[in-house]
Amino acid sequence: MLIGVVGGGQLGRMLGLAGLPIGMRFRFLDPGDNCPAAEAGEMIRGAYDDTAALARLIDGAACATYEFENVPAAAAMFLDSHTRLGPGPRSLSVAQDRIEEKQFFHACGVPVQPYRAVSSPQELRTAVDSVGFPAVLKTRRLGYDGKGQAVVRSAEGAGAGWDSLDRVPCIYEAFVPFVREVSLVATRSRQGEFVAHALTRNEHRDGILRVSVAPDPGADQALRNAAEGYVRAIAEALNHVGTLAVEFFVVADGDRYSLIANEMAPRVHNSGHWTIEGAITSQFENHLRAITGLPLGDAGMRGVAAMVNIIGTVPPIAEILALRGARLHLYSKEPKPGRKLGHITVTGADHEEVMPLVARLRELTAG
Amino acid sequence: MLIGVVGGGQLGRMLGLAGLPIGMRFRFLDPGDNCPAAEAGEMIRGAYDDTAALARLIDGAACATYEFENVPAAAAMFLDSHTRLGPGPRSLSVAQDRIEEKQFFHACGVPVQPYRAVSSPQELRTAVDSVGFPAVLKTRRLGYDGKGQAVVRSAEGAGAGWDSLDRVPCIYEAFVPFVREVSLVATRSRQGEFVAHALTRNEHRDGILRVSVAPDPGADQALRNAAEGYVRAIAEALNHVGTLAVEFFVVADGDRYSLIANEMAPRVHNSGHWTIEGAITSQFENHLRAITGLPLGDAGMRGVAAMVNIIGTVPPIAEILALRGARLHLYSKEPKPGRKLGHITVTGADHEEVMPLVARLRELTAG
Repeated sequence: MLIGVVGGGQLGRMLGLAGLPIGMRFRFLDPGDNCPAAEAGEMIRGAYDDTAALARLIDGAACATYEFENVPAAAAMFLDSHTRLGPGPRSLSVAQDRIEEKQFFHACGVPVQPYRAVSSPQELRTAVDSVGFPAVLKTRRLGYDGKGQAVVRSAEGAGAGWDSLDRVPCIYEAFVPFVREVSLVATRSRQGEFVAHALTRNEHRDGILRVSVAPDPGADQALRNAAEGYVRAIAEALNHVGTLAVEFFVVADGDRYSLIANEMAPRVHNSGHWTIEGAITSQFENHLRAITGLPLGDAGMRGVAAMVNIIGTVPPIAEILALRGARLHLYSKEPKPGRKLGHITVTGADHEEVMPLVARLRELTAG
Repeated sequence: MLIGVVGGGQLGRMLGLAGLPIGMRFRFLDPGDNCPAAEAGEMIRGAYDDTAALARLIDGAACATYEFENVPAAAAMFLDSHTRLGPGPRSLSVAQDRIEEKQFFHACGVPVQPYRAVSSPQELRTAVDSVGFPAVLKTRRLGYDGKGQAVVRSAEGAGAGWDSLDRVPCIYEAFVPFVREVSLVATRSRQGEFVAHALTRNEHRDGILRVSVAPDPGADQALRNAAEGYVRAIAEALNHVGTLAVEFFVVADGDRYSLIANEMAPRVHNSGHWTIEGAITSQFENHLRAITGLPLGDAGMRGVAAMVNIIGTVPPIAEILALRGARLHLYSKEPKPGRKLGHITVTGADHEEVMPLVARLRELTAG
């Protein structure tokens, strides 16, 4: 069974490595050279909107998927009409536009912070007046890993911030005074089956995910249920097929905690990489099962897991591998500041066993 | 880091899938077409004793290894003198000749059953007289999965058995009245570090491994210690670098149990496939760590694991994947009676959780 994947980065690579053992083969489309996914399947070098390349991608394929959400709408339409595309174009279009995403979350009953669309100086003034400070201006489209964002602390700062983003259409969001950040990675099948991985605590640095710990040690059952309910509502409203991730802020709400949705990714997600070792079935395998119509696997945990990203430079791998139980995942990418080059997963019986390993991995990967 | 692997079968494939995440790349040499390992690296099609092909195999490689023990001696010598070969030629030569293997085990203090070399009618008569019945005649070289064997129950049967093996040089072994079969898979590094996986109970059908369960539910600490001591002695005497497996018969010895060594494999082994999910570090990754000089990983268990081989035909994969926690590994091979096409691993907290899954997998894979 051949799967066509738009994008040849590390997510494609890990999809391939998860799918080969269950009898799948892969073909990837990417305009770049030396793609991480090249070691897991056949590469087609071409633009994402090159119809001939897209046709080659799905020639003989059972279905198509993508490993990043900025797939051009025309490419998604082409794939959706010529093969089974999972997730479908609706999941992509919602995730590609931060305003549409917020409106969609709200319509699904998922809490979001105050926000306003900004595409003119007038709208910027209205946004500043109604949302206030501090706030974050983000480009409506094409942002990732903290790119395309400006923090706003004053009316003058709002104008400067928008200038720094080239005055493209933006969203002006209230800054959320969060206690911590979490995400939920889940998978929905073509038959509507839904399985969720454990709620995961995430820590970012310079806008890039640095450490994930699952399950979130601070969450009680009510918070876990809330997250799962929100993600299920989103997946069902999208008629989503495949894996998706929703990132939330945890905010103090009197003597309890509640969730505010930040953004979603209609794909496997960095905060779910720990599932390769830490879950009975990984996010990658469940995504592949979903889009090919196979039954979903158990997303239950195998103990406690944590993941530390390798960013910018790869530390000596002998030092990582000498750490008891550390599982290394390199993406075959050239080192570059701020670039995700790999990750390391550690697992254990409980948080007490795992957190000292995380502390050591932070040192090793401090770069 | 590039690794050259002699052989392109499923063991090469799983070595590749284990090594890609830790930054290794692979090149395989195999005379066959449609090799299982082709999806995990570059293939060179050529004979194992083709010096030009062997030279291409290791061009730019950090080291070389093999995935089966019948590598021609001249090829092993070539690789050993032109790169780092792990395990070395001594491990191969011992494993390639059942008489040398038995003598070597004995010299290491590892118990073996009574046996005699047979290369003439006179030697066959001597063997029958001294070892008796029942016994097993096996070709000294090139046997695997029960091939090249004849059971002998009488003096006339001995002659007929040897005829059926084309009167090639054989070993005449006393049949061991075993309680069960077990194996120990372990890895030794270039620095002499030694780690052992859990003692594994194995069940064969028609000479082919059918089910493995780890840890062996019947073993006490004394039996585990004995197995580990024997395998460590063998690995050290060979100056073995890499993974090896030793198969044992468990025999009743008064009110206790003891071990008789059956045979060894100087490589990753089918009875260690459960380590992909069931151990903190798999036999495949530890083999690669050993031959490249990296520190070995923890071989401790993650719960209880069992593996069921898929032989001859692949059952509908949706049925396998619907089984809670089943992890499927297909080898990309054409179905054929008696051929190993894949395996399924199940893990759980204890044997009570795992054994009903094994029972269901037996039904699904009954073929």
